[in-house]
Amino acid sequence: MSRVPVNSIGLPETIWFDDEQLCVLDQTELPHSVWPFVINSVDDAFEAIARMHVRGAPAIGITAAYGMVVDRPSLIGDAGSVAEVLMRLEDRHRRLVVARPTAVNLRWALDRMRDAAQVWAEENDSGTPRQIYEHLVQTAKTIHTEDRRMCGAIGQHGKSLIDSGLGVLTHCNAGSLATSEHGTATAPMYAAHGDGVAFSAFVDETRPRLQGAKLTAWELSTAGIDTTLLCDNMAASLMAAGRVQLILVGTDRVTTDGSVANKIGTLPLAIVAKHYGIPLYVAFATSTLDRDLDRGDEIPIEHRGGNEVVRIGEHLIAPDDVRVYSPAFDVTPGDLVTGYITQTGVYRAEEFERLLREAE
Amino acid sequence: MSRVPVNSIGLPETIWFDDEQLCVLDQTELPHSVWPFVINSVDDAFEAIARMHVRGAPAIGITAAYGMVVDRPSLIGDAGSVAEVLMRLEDRHRRLVVARPTAVNLRWALDRMRDAAQVWAEENDSGTPRQIYEHLVQTAKTIHTEDRRMCGAIGQHGKSLIDSGLGVLTHCNAGSLATSEHGTATAPMYAAHGDGVAFSAFVDETRPRLQGAKLTAWELSTAGIDTTLLCDNMAASLMAAGRVQLILVGTDRVTTDGSVANKIGTLPLAIVAKHYGIPLYVAFATSTLDRDLDRGDEIPIEHRGGNEVVRIGEHLIAPDDVRVYSPAFDVTPGDLVTGYITQTGVYRAEEFERLLREAE
Repeated sequence: MSRVPVNSIGLPETIWFDDEQLCVLDQTELPHSVWPFVINSVDDAFEAIARMHVRGAPAIGITAAYGMVVDRPSLIGDAGSVAEVLMRLEDRHRRLVVARPTAVNLRWALDRMRDAAQVWAEENDSGTPRQIYEHLVQTAKTIHTEDRRMCGAIGQHGKSLIDSGLGVLTHCNAGSLATSEHGTATAPMYAAHGDGVAFSAFVDETRPRLQGAKLTAWELSTAGIDTTLLCDNMAASLMAAGRVQLILVGTDRVTTDGSVANKIGTLPLAIVAKHYGIPLYVAFATSTLDRDLDRGDEIPIEHRGGNEVVRIGEHLIAPDDVRVYSPAFDVTPGDLVTGYITQTGVYRAEEFERLLREAE
Repeated sequence: MSRVPVNSIGLPETIWFDDEQLCVLDQTELPHSVWPFVINSVDDAFEAIARMHVRGAPAIGITAAYGMVVDRPSLIGDAGSVAEVLMRLEDRHRRLVVARPTAVNLRWALDRMRDAAQVWAEENDSGTPRQIYEHLVQTAKTIHTEDRRMCGAIGQHGKSLIDSGLGVLTHCNAGSLATSEHGTATAPMYAAHGDGVAFSAFVDETRPRLQGAKLTAWELSTAGIDTTLLCDNMAASLMAAGRVQLILVGTDRVTTDGSVANKIGTLPLAIVAKHYGIPLYVAFATSTLDRDLDRGDEIPIEHRGGNEVVRIGEHLIAPDDVRVYSPAFDVTPGDLVTGYITQTGVYRAEEFERLLREAE
């Protein structure tokens, strides 16, 4: 792990910014090599997000925030005024906001950086480009720190669900790698592990992009947690065998009826869990709530090309002209969710109204 | 498809025996090339089965039956008596029966060939090696023909379940490639397609060995059926979207309580199907019934090494030292099965006792 700093849970940092140098852990190389992807320009930041060197909504947001201030010379080097810096920030916002189509945190973080710049400019008539730059670096660091705190709080609340000896199943990567640190679904696991609770983690490989196999199995085992990988279609057998007592997943969007959109494969997990009476909790920062949508079936679902399904690396696993059905996400109705874990607490499904109030 | 004959449903033959030449369609090369694996010796027959050039319980049984009579010179060339041929058959039986650990049809077909030889020898005091050889070739051909008829009958009974416009989902490969022709789970599809019924087939890729992607998607689309491939964890979304009206699967073993062992991933499919009220039928030749077992949980489940999960072709998709949970099969309890299709008819789950009687 040379060149990559280690975070508080013993894992390589997902994102780090030192001496104006922005790096992300290159997730396209995991689990085979632990290496930074160095971001020296706005183009690099765009590429890091677009080509998924960094992924996971919170991690994308943080990277984008820092992306607004990388390459200081081109942002303020020859800027004659704060107004000129604001214009250049507008350019960066426009460039970065299209790096990924659906990541809500991407726009949120970029808007927050832009708004912070505008408010600062209004409040500091005689400010200099250097001063607004320093303010924006601080804002990006705050976004980063807030995410660490939020994920840490999810872990502290959620760890009460994990006792010694339990089998805990997760899907995809709502892990440290998807956030600043701790993750969302994994945060209770890291917190329990930090307290010395000996449980077993089970990780769905998560077809088609295999984030469970490539990322979650790697990060949990690297952090020293007892970890077992399985194919998505093996989780039911594991549950039938009585080896799973808790399922923890993340989410990309939560609607006001308690439905959750998450990586494809979450819905069958929830249905099978309900069949066997196994609790399923959804962990998320409350920024993931979409108060504009009342029902899960209103969530637009991205359908992806067949190539991700029929090719694994260079390996073609099906007739290359076969038609493919490949939704990237599915929607789990609230009645299949046992409870929710956020930075404000743990809520049973029937307490979802209280979650909505406390998240305001 | 040069060199590979075509069967009655427009697909390459799975197994063919002409002029004492045994060939199987090389399934390790599918879907990329359609090419025979030529069997000139008992060792070749062993390799064809052990290395899965041919797979699927019925197809393995048929191949093994012919494997008892390949390489005529070494079986009867210098045999001075029928008794000597019987001894050589015993050798062949011993060699071939261990080619795959769990395929019940393998032992069944080899035993049937050996028994046929013994009975013939007893009934034909003055028979010659050449005559017993001819009798055994005929017996192997009969085993082959019986399987064609059985699969054909499953198709004729089961096609009543498929109407125009339906979405029919299947898992793994209980197809033409696993049998002589028609398959079991696919037989009703081929029969309906032959009658001009326009339905849509959906095929789970079936991790870890991807038989759905590599074999079933290939054979259904090659036969001209409208075919869509999906990852196993996408089937629930497809069902939630109302695009599946029928699920057809095969089975490796059926116990007397109606439980079915089948390729890993069948159990979650059955649970999700029940959740959405979608009928799931299990298609099988009644030789798959195991009357010695009263309950599904008595079926021993083979657990396979992690390599099949962490490597796809040469591509490593997970930390190579990660622990893996990889059962090859799961058991679907009878109460999750809507009905059964055999060569004797279609049975609702509550008619399983009648199925047992009629299968005798």
